[in-house]
Amino acid sequence: MEHDTPVTASPLSLSISDSTICAISTPPGVGGIAVVRISGPRAIDIADSVWEGKSLASAQSHTAHLGNIIDPDAAPGEPPLDQAVATVYRSPRSFTGEDVVEISVHGSRWIQSRLIKILIDRGCRLAEPGEFTRRAFASGRLDLAEAEAVADVIAASSKNAHRLAAGQMRGDFSKVLETLRNQLLDLASLLELELDFSEEDVEFASREKLIGTADEIHRLVTRLASSFSTGQAIKDGIPVAIVGEPNAGKSTLLNALLQDNRAIVSNIPGTTRDTIEDTIEINGILYRFIDTAGLRNTPADEVEALGIGRTLDKISQARIVIWVLPPDFADLGQLSSEITSRLSADTALIVAVNKIDITSVDRDKITTAISTTLPQSAPTIFISAHTGQNIDRLQSLLHDVSGADLIDNADVIVTNARHYEALISAKTSITRVIDGLHTGLSGDFIAQDLRETIHHLGTITGTITTPEILTTIFTRFCIGK
Amino acid sequence: MEHDTPVTASPLSLSISDSTICAISTPPGVGGIAVVRISGPRAIDIADSVWEGKSLASAQSHTAHLGNIIDPDAAPGEPPLDQAVATVYRSPRSFTGEDVVEISVHGSRWIQSRLIKILIDRGCRLAEPGEFTRRAFASGRLDLAEAEAVADVIAASSKNAHRLAAGQMRGDFSKVLETLRNQLLDLASLLELELDFSEEDVEFASREKLIGTADEIHRLVTRLASSFSTGQAIKDGIPVAIVGEPNAGKSTLLNALLQDNRAIVSNIPGTTRDTIEDTIEINGILYRFIDTAGLRNTPADEVEALGIGRTLDKISQARIVIWVLPPDFADLGQLSSEITSRLSADTALIVAVNKIDITSVDRDKITTAISTTLPQSAPTIFISAHTGQNIDRLQSLLHDVSGADLIDNADVIVTNARHYEALISAKTSITRVIDGLHTGLSGDFIAQDLRETIHHLGTITGTITTPEILTTIFTRFCIGK
Repeated sequence: MEHDTPVTASPLSLSISDSTICAISTPPGVGGIAVVRISGPRAIDIADSVWEGKSLASAQSHTAHLGNIIDPDAAPGEPPLDQAVATVYRSPRSFTGEDVVEISVHGSRWIQSRLIKILIDRGCRLAEPGEFTRRAFASGRLDLAEAEAVADVIAASSKNAHRLAAGQMRGDFSKVLETLRNQLLDLASLLELELDFSEEDVEFASREKLIGTADEIHRLVTRLASSFSTGQAIKDGIPVAIVGEPNAGKSTLLNALLQDNRAIVSNIPGTTRDTIEDTIEINGILYRFIDTAGLRNTPADEVEALGIGRTLDKISQARIVIWVLPPDFADLGQLSSEITSRLSADTALIVAVNKIDITSVDRDKITTAISTTLPQSAPTIFISAHTGQNIDRLQSLLHDVSGADLIDNADVIVTNARHYEALISAKTSITRVIDGLHTGLSGDFIAQDLRETIHHLGTITGTITTPEILTTIFTRFCIGK
Repeated sequence: MEHDTPVTASPLSLSISDSTICAISTPPGVGGIAVVRISGPRAIDIADSVWEGKSLASAQSHTAHLGNIIDPDAAPGEPPLDQAVATVYRSPRSFTGEDVVEISVHGSRWIQSRLIKILIDRGCRLAEPGEFTRRAFASGRLDLAEAEAVADVIAASSKNAHRLAAGQMRGDFSKVLETLRNQLLDLASLLELELDFSEEDVEFASREKLIGTADEIHRLVTRLASSFSTGQAIKDGIPVAIVGEPNAGKSTLLNALLQDNRAIVSNIPGTTRDTIEDTIEINGILYRFIDTAGLRNTPADEVEALGIGRTLDKISQARIVIWVLPPDFADLGQLSSEITSRLSADTALIVAVNKIDITSVDRDKITTAISTTLPQSAPTIFISAHTGQNIDRLQSLLHDVSGADLIDNADVIVTNARHYEALISAKTSITRVIDGLHTGLSGDFIAQDLRETIHHLGTITGTITTPEILTTIFTRFCIGK
């Protein structure tokens, strides 16, 4: 009985490397330099056909050469398309595992599009999104979870999102899955033993051991699956709603949080204001601020009431709610229950009493008023969004309630919805294994559930996959990677 | 007597290469890969300090190495910042002439900004715009005209703009200037001879020869200076105004021209619609379309009259005006003189009779009507902007009147305003030389004017320059080049 037969073809048979592909691998647009990557059996040959300089066919792997790109359509006396550097990587010592040439040219729009056109004329095919990485997977240089992490590494815009993706790319998650897989194979061997000797007295001890191993697998799969909600928040940004009455200082607070952290992104030209205005990285964690309208106990009219309704709905999407209060608030009353009734179990509430620079406040009295009104405990902080006083403490508080301590423990965290779904499926089948063991189900049925568990986990690293799954995965990549 | 003393310090003394600089050299934004360039005496040393892998200090020039970038702030167990390829270029065999390391990383926002920060912490300075090219100039790898062309190459968005810049970058313009300089030095030698033997009978023959050489220089300088208007139009796009009555089909025509040529730019992701909607490359030439309001002989009201006034003003900025006429136009009358009176001497007028798909037209009659009404001859073409009929012929016509045949003759064309000004100054002083020779001015005065001519031309290639000029020039570069 085999527990480990892939249900579909091996990834290697999905290889599409009889073609040679090319694409611009650097960010779109104009810059000092741009890199065009060519990969496939004819990469060096095709590059040589447009190259004036030392023959790339005779170049050693990992060497860079200065030369000229020749435009076949150029009239006599015309300058070459560009002076360029071509770096040769010979199979299998390249990103894709195939022969690769990277051509570094001046980063003008014209040169980039023209070079791609020339290469296509010479026999390259324009690479599909993620096709270089897909080839790296096909040639066994990356497993599927590692390959998927390449797109996450490129998309990561905060320290911790990067760290999760980089860990996954270097195989941290794959190692855990390998451990799980070995445990499952152990379990399968034990089960086989039991099946072979089911009439003898080894059964009871063996069954206990089987249940122990299955429980352990169940715990690990459950922990991984439950890390997804944190993983997703870290990857996409933790949704934070800043709520409060009009003029409580919500915008000033957002600006104060931005001001402190804008420097982190400002080194990169081209960062759009749109992006930084709504997301802020604080201490390595990306927060995504949700726009909200001002709230008040008694809306002036129906239109305002509608706006308030929408704001309250947004509170339920947030993982953190910062309620900004003026220091002279009269009554928390109805607003308080409106807000707290919408908090989900996972949502953290922070109360920020603002404008302490302009009014002297009796902190004890306010703290007491808040704690007696709110149906749940919420950390209360006294700030001035205007002067920046205690904004640093508010940032620490955000970090504390973000759930990011999971990362600080260097645990493996699941960030990918496909992996999450596979884990949930694996959890279901390993649960059936455990139930079966408890209820004394026939070994054959249990073995079937075990194979399913192995199958679901196998889809994560791609030991089991289909061309359709691969296409879905790599389509979300950018072209050129 | 020296004719060739630089009036300012030699470019080499402007070298600032005691510092090591770094910058992102690829276009801003997110992509498959990004390249960070480091240049200066400590480039290899600093790269090694963040590098896990083969020592870059022991690497040969022009070799690429796979390794990891280590974040000095990383906690134990954290993955490296990124897996990267570092390519080493040793002085003087690099773009800047200094030691250079190019680090190719995954092109995420986070990795790019973090790597720059780490390198700065380790002793790099963030490069100023164009500083790599400035260093290439300082180390004598490029003259100033060639260095300036680097920015033009990067900015070029049409075939011919690229070709002019690429030609200048590889030294085509510098070679012409070198010829001019040699002629001027010849002239100076002859003049010295004349000064030394001014009492003898060689004077007359010598003076004739002097005038002949000076005339030749004058002709070349004049030709170069007069190419600037074409050069500028090719570089920035040839301004074209499409004018005509409301509903003549101006927008349809613009779209028809766009449609045919959109494919040229569509390979490059990130090309903004704003840019392609207003400029079109046709047969290698960039046309910049000027928005105009509909014109009519008798404006409905004052507001419309104002709009028409603005349109007519724009006609005077165009180098080409396409006047779109409906096939059933009644009277060209006043509108015709409004338009033609605003055409400058350089502006070409094309009359496009539109909508030939919906109305049968008597071409001879219309052609006669136009030619008798217009005070100047203008090619007339019959088109359907809607079906695309004859749009290709209109494009050929645009090419014919664009003045781009200068490029097809592979002449050197001046595209840079600074060069144009220097040429105009050189023309003024060489004119004084010629006048002086004709009027028998003292050799000392003539020599002074000759030195000035050499000086002005020297500012173009940078044999004569000042830090201020260099700063002005390189500030218009992007960072990372």
